[in-house]
Amino acid sequence: CLLPLFLGLFQGALLLFFALFVTYDEPSAQVEDANLVANQVYSTFPFFQDIQVMLVVGLGLLLTFLPRYGFSALTHNFLLLNFSMQWALVLQGLIHHFHHGQIHLDLHKLLIAEFAAVTVLISVGAILGRTSPCQLLVVAACEIPVYLASEWVIVSCLGVLDVGGTITIHVFSCYFGLGVSKALFWAGQKPLHPKETPTPRSDLTSLVGMLILWVFWPSFVAVLCQAGHAQHRAILNTLLAMSASAVTTVVASSLLERDGKLSPGHLQNGSLAGGVAIGAVADMAMPPAAALALGSLSATACVLGFKFLTPLLGRKLGLQDQCGIHNLHGLPGILGGAASAVAILVAPKDTPGSHFSQLSPAGGNASEVVGEQQGDGGVSRQALCQAAGLAVAIGVSLVAGLFTGAALRLPCLARPPERLCFEDSLYFKFQGQDESLGPGSTTEEEAMAMKERV
Amino acid sequence: CLLPLFLGLFQGALLLFFALFVTYDEPSAQVEDANLVANQVYSTFPFFQDIQVMLVVGLGLLLTFLPRYGFSALTHNFLLLNFSMQWALVLQGLIHHFHHGQIHLDLHKLLIAEFAAVTVLISVGAILGRTSPCQLLVVAACEIPVYLASEWVIVSCLGVLDVGGTITIHVFSCYFGLGVSKALFWAGQKPLHPKETPTPRSDLTSLVGMLILWVFWPSFVAVLCQAGHAQHRAILNTLLAMSASAVTTVVASSLLERDGKLSPGHLQNGSLAGGVAIGAVADMAMPPAAALALGSLSATACVLGFKFLTPLLGRKLGLQDQCGIHNLHGLPGILGGAASAVAILVAPKDTPGSHFSQLSPAGGNASEVVGEQQGDGGVSRQALCQAAGLAVAIGVSLVAGLFTGAALRLPCLARPPERLCFEDSLYFKFQGQDESLGPGSTTEEEAMAMKERV
Amino acid sequence: CLLPLFLGLFQGALLLFFALFVTYDEPSAQVEDANLVANQVYSTFPFFQDIQVMLVVGLGLLLTFLPRYGFSALTHNFLLLNFSMQWALVLQGLIHHFHHGQIHLDLHKLLIAEFAAVTVLISVGAILGRTSPCQLLVVAACEIPVYLASEWVIVSCLGVLDVGGTITIHVFSCYFGLGVSKALFWAGQKPLHPKETPTPRSDLTSLVGMLILWVFWPSFVAVLCQAGHAQHRAILNTLLAMSASAVTTVVASSLLERDGKLSPGHLQNGSLAGGVAIGAVADMAMPPAAALALGSLSATACVLGFKFLTPLLGRKLGLQDQCGIHNLHGLPGILGGAASAVAILVAPKDTPGSHFSQLSPAGGNASEVVGEQQGDGGVSRQALCQAAGLAVAIGVSLVAGLFTGAALRLPCLARPPERLCFEDSLYFKFQGQDESLGPGSTTEEEAMAMKERV
Repeated sequence: CLLPLFLGLFQGALLLFFALFVTYDEPSAQVEDANLVANQVYSTFPFFQDIQVMLVVGLGLLLTFLPRYGFSALTHNFLLLNFSMQWALVLQGLIHHFHHGQIHLDLHKLLIAEFAAVTVLISVGAILGRTSPCQLLVVAACEIPVYLASEWVIVSCLGVLDVGGTITIHVFSCYFGLGVSKALFWAGQKPLHPKETPTPRSDLTSLVGMLILWVFWPSFVAVLCQAGHAQHRAILNTLLAMSASAVTTVVASSLLERDGKLSPGHLQNGSLAGGVAIGAVADMAMPPAAALALGSLSATACVLGFKFLTPLLGRKLGLQDQCGIHNLHGLPGILGGAASAVAILVAPKDTPGSHFSQLSPAGGNASEVVGEQQGDGGVSRQALCQAAGLAVAIGVSLVAGLFTGAALRLPCLARPPERLCFEDSLYFKFQGQDESLGPGSTTEEEAMAMKERV
Repeated sequence: CLLPLFLGLFQGALLLFFALFVTYDEPSAQVEDANLVANQVYSTFPFFQDIQVMLVVGLGLLLTFLPRYGFSALTHNFLLLNFSMQWALVLQGLIHHFHHGQIHLDLHKLLIAEFAAVTVLISVGAILGRTSPCQLLVVAACEIPVYLASEWVIVSCLGVLDVGGTITIHVFSCYFGLGVSKALFWAGQKPLHPKETPTPRSDLTSLVGMLILWVFWPSFVAVLCQAGHAQHRAILNTLLAMSASAVTTVVASSLLERDGKLSPGHLQNGSLAGGVAIGAVADMAMPPAAALALGSLSATACVLGFKFLTPLLGRKLGLQDQCGIHNLHGLPGILGGAASAVAILVAPKDTPGSHFSQLSPAGGNASEVVGEQQGDGGVSRQALCQAAGLAVAIGVSLVAGLFTGAALRLPCLARPPERLCFEDSLYFKFQGQDESLGPGSTTEEEAMAMKERV
Repeated sequence: CLLPLFLGLFQGALLLFFALFVTYDEPSAQVEDANLVANQVYSTFPFFQDIQVMLVVGLGLLLTFLPRYGFSALTHNFLLLNFSMQWALVLQGLIHHFHHGQIHLDLHKLLIAEFAAVTVLISVGAILGRTSPCQLLVVAACEIPVYLASEWVIVSCLGVLDVGGTITIHVFSCYFGLGVSKALFWAGQKPLHPKETPTPRSDLTSLVGMLILWVFWPSFVAVLCQAGHAQHRAILNTLLAMSASAVTTVVASSLLERDGKLSPGHLQNGSLAGGVAIGAVADMAMPPAAALALGSLSATACVLGFKFLTPLLGRKLGLQDQCGIHNLHGLPGILGGAASAVAILVAPKDTPGSHFSQLSPAGGNASEVVGEQQGDGGVSRQALCQAAGLAVAIGVSLVAGLFTGAALRLPCLARPPERLCFEDSLYFKFQGQDESLGPGSTTEEEAMAMKERV
């Protein structure tokens, strides 16, 4: 049985790694700064909890729009979050901190690992329902190291400003997921599966998930900002952008759909587009109207993407994108990246430090960045860096995603057969539910399960 | 198509207004108070997030008790919140701050705008399910300016103490909603609609909404209190009142229903009545027992209202109150307003400043209030002011509500025909759901949709 | 009618007690420490709200796995929480503070009362669905005083270190609940009831409840820790343990179930086992790897318990454990208690104060404990105390639970007849649901209701 074997071995290796290399800060050496630690906990922990709610409950519920796949969506999302976070902790420990000897775990490092895990949760949205848990774990295993490398290049080497992860997280994970999907379903777009259609009830739980994400999104964007004005501004900008997104989504969906009705799918995604786009500029010194405009634009792009681009990509490129991650994370992410370059170019010159008053997530070279761009040359160079970061994120993720997707075609990973896709009972043993697959299914299902056992 | 036209124009106007008049505080002028801003964020933002959860998720789910109208209830609540908040931001900017030139946006101003939006969300409960989104937006457009004016009169002119919005928010929005309902459905009470009856499943999601509101209510009441003892007391009083409400609701419902069974509707509303009533007195120096008593009393009033008053008002006045807002917000609100007058009269005289140690929501003339009532005359005058505030809230809201309701009768606002009320599929395009309305419905529904398009 | 009579009298007595003995701190005497109170509110209130969400929403939803009993599960959980909290406030007031005259209520005392209420909510999981609300209230009335006494013995007399309530709350409430179940259903295990089987939909809402509990669990464990390093460590340890639990549950369930499928019940419980176990050691100076190991071990124990121990106990002892509280709270609790003894024995000797840097929940004799164990003797004595505390918790709770269960057999408490178990409509009056019980049910149900009225 491959899944428990893999997970069990991983958990054992993690335990060994932690036992050998990871400690907390020694309390004896730090008696004097107990107040400092307490303040850090009080200032970070509420944000951290908000983000946990987003990822575990909000994102999980958002994925339950497939009526017979809700339990799998929630559980796989939860499992992937935990696995990816642990894997990111290990890799971060190895990469960033190994030359310092002992690794000192703290809440900030867990937060960074959680951000890494987010990329996996987004990427697998493209292949939701047509993949086994084994395949999902392979995606996580491959994506986390690529993400860490690309994030290091983008933030630390290029000095890209991206406090809310628009480029490093959303754009990266979107194109990684699309690459995986393309390589995995190479033959082309699948015909519509009978279990793929949402019901009003599954649309409702998905909507609740969207609302939870919408409420807590400002915490996600602002948690890594410098305390004070930058963080305050990031919260306000995110609130404005998401509010504009919500209203604009209704306008756009109502104009595009027959009879002026709204599409549940547009609402579930478009209302969040502003949060994706605002990440790269949230703490910059731009006027509030820009946040509103960016929110409206990205929601429009998202709804238009669902209406026109997704069907087009399906027909032309044979691209399968189950949750529409290209519309929610790709298009608004690119918009946000472009907006960050524009915001840097048009920012008032007399407040040079204002839009660089952020902590880069990896604790990178923010000070050098500030130092080298007091002049116009520095400003246009920084704008170029933002564009370069966007290009790196797209390029690296697409290539790595294609390779990962090819690896998912390995037979031992037990891709579910077409007629058992989008079906909870393939992975979960519900009591009194043996008859749910109808006559004839048991043999195929058992064969499938046998295969995964090998 | 009226809805996207109206919303689109509004969003454009908002953008223009923000571009012309709204900025954040300039960071250059305030380098020295970064710590101050950081502390403000840490002390306000968790409360703000709690309130967002209440309004977006809690209140939204509470309204899903109509089995075929859950998606509309959640979405319309979400849309109205965003629209009303933006509209309140514009009006507040124009009214309060225009003479200072630039408007400096901060978290506190957003919070005040959110409080204004709450009134709309409460009011439309009276007409839930029988109104189109266009009509709901007209309600919001009319109610927000009236609320801001009435709040200015009540808090700034009369000096009413009402930290949790019992009078200014709950009583006001209740009678505004009832006025709208009366003027809109002038002909009298509607017969019971077949889709109006909750199912056990829809009652369950509504109950979850109530529980979310119940948990976060202390944040709503305490967010605008002065930090320290007043806020601590407001939190404790709210917790005690809501705990007493929860227990008393079970007692009252069990005594009133046949066989000692409980009514889901009573539970969904009565448990929150204590939170409505406590708002006006939450931060005053009253004994904890008073909070318990007020919670019990208001829950009893709420349950009795559902059992006797709502049917009576329906029969005698032809009043339609879909969610029973008069029982949840009207009766407990009046009780709370009366309690605030009593609490001021019986407060110990040797601690004169104790129950005035609050920030009035609009940053009003709290200091003058404290100054003028060191004697008994001041105390009884303050009690009179509380009563006058209650009267103003009821009178202004009823009249304004009646006018707004009359405006909703305009044919261009596309009120849904009786047989398509309480039906999600009138506003949302669910996949594979075209058959849900049954044979014959399509023509009428299309005619309806055509009408809304014009 | 017994239920409203009992609850009404209790609420009246509570009001009287509060009116006579309970006040807030006088503000006049404490003008100087307003900042102190404000900081206490900001540092405690977010944790408090997280715990409220856990108990009201998370635990409530976790119990909705019975498909026709979800409304009852949520409502009874909510009612019991409120009743138990108020009852604990009264008893705490009487026991701990009466000799100081007036009782000064604050957020910390409410939090302690809420912790006491948790024991009731856990215990009644063993008898979920087969008991009337009257019986549940009797359980609460009996369990709270026994809990307060046992907690005083364990924490204050024995000096047991248990910041997250592993021994005092989880182990105690588990064996109390099992005792109640044994004495109430003395005749032996019930045959499987047709309404007892979860459906995929009820499993889904239960899973959402688990996820909410999982997210907020660190707040539960860390809220009473000393601010600073201890609290920081408690949060991190809990996060690590719960993450390991989540992954290990998937491994264990997949290995144990036929075809490598996962059991929903395992997921709903096993993922939380790490949080139960970590409570006793969360703030101790142990390596992070130990938290991971404890999380994995307890999840394994929980899943094995569901698979083998619960059926065995049912067959051999006739023990009914509806929610499997022995697997979620009993086994992981004992593991955690044992781990705390081991952690104390193997802790590095050069940092003697490190793992005692906690506030005992009752504000007990932590300083004496620290004083007396600078040597090896003190350390091994402390380890013995942990074991003794575990024994006291199990012994006291079992005996008290058996007596309480015997009291529940009183006929006036209206135990529901077997065929109406697990049925919401026995306690709630859903509109248009009179036919739900099928023909013939009305008479029996009415007889049942008549009985409860007497």
